[in-house]
Amino acid sequence: MTYPLSPSMVKTIPDGDTHERHVCEHCGLVNYQNPKIVVGSVVRHQGKFLMCRRAIEPRRGFWTIPAGYLELHETPEDGARREALEEANARIAISGLLAVYTVPRLSQVQLIYRATLEKPEFSAGEESLEVQLFDWESIPRDDIAFPTVHWALNHDLSAEQGGLKAPFGNSEGASTDLPED
Amino acid sequence: MTYPLSPSMVKTIPDGDTHERHVCEHCGLVNYQNPKIVVGSVVRHQGKFLMCRRAIEPRRGFWTIPAGYLELHETPEDGARREALEEANARIAISGLLAVYTVPRLSQVQLIYRATLEKPEFSAGEESLEVQLFDWESIPRDDIAFPTVHWALNHDLSAEQGGLKAPFGNSEGASTDLPED
Repeated sequence: MTYPLSPSMVKTIPDGDTHERHVCEHCGLVNYQNPKIVVGSVVRHQGKFLMCRRAIEPRRGFWTIPAGYLELHETPEDGARREALEEANARIAISGLLAVYTVPRLSQVQLIYRATLEKPEFSAGEESLEVQLFDWESIPRDDIAFPTVHWALNHDLSAEQGGLKAPFGNSEGASTDLPED
Repeated sequence: MTYPLSPSMVKTIPDGDTHERHVCEHCGLVNYQNPKIVVGSVVRHQGKFLMCRRAIEPRRGFWTIPAGYLELHETPEDGARREALEEANARIAISGLLAVYTVPRLSQVQLIYRATLEKPEFSAGEESLEVQLFDWESIPRDDIAFPTVHWALNHDLSAEQGGLKAPFGNSEGASTDLPED
């Protein structure tokens, strides 16, 4: 599609609003921006952890858990199940909420669930280079895509061992910034 | 502000996207829509529950707990504290996550926390007609603004009594639709 004009955004407070928003000077469209919800899961199978190597940016080639943006009109649990299916062709059973993480820099709230594989079948979806089950000891810790993936794996272990109670929040003192590649 | 044109939205799949979005035909601006996050709290003080009577639509005149939309770059806990301050001029201490509710019809995910008043001071903020502490028995159950407010109060009681473990999800079989006025 081509358009006669390009959006030309200015910051202003729309009539009846209390906050400054981005508004297009051409047409007046208010581009509301809200925090985004990421839903995902730590998926176990016989004590192993399901992980996906990312085929897309950011952090292509690094390992993550199945997770992605919640869609409109979707419950977080449905979203977490959909992401596991899309990224790992895996059908999962969710057992409970593991953690609520916040990445304020990205205005992102992450809802991470505990889950198991419904059957031992999985493969790389479109957004994954490969999908693998890892023993706790063999998780590729140096090639993890995001800090919250480290947190989720550690929190899942804590929850499994029963020492601490889910849901967890951000790991104390830990940054949500990406490590340098 | 006035604008030369009005936004003229069509549904189309933007280049490089996978989902249909609302796009302005005049300027090409893509109006991405995402689920919204509501943050709120069940606030207790000496066994009583802090409630606000809404001064704004929807459900003006009905009772609710302090809650509202999470802002950009805000953690859910900060958002819940801000809402208690804005709606009830109340400073609260959050003790943990009580519930994650979903209202798929509105694409809304609600994160509700358990909290107490830091000091016994509160008053009606701009969006409230009045703010009051209620004994469990005297909560105005017939004049509650939203189904999830009922759920949150009941779940808070369950969590307090220790019978069930937070966080709770949607009340089983219950609708998130508004009751008829």
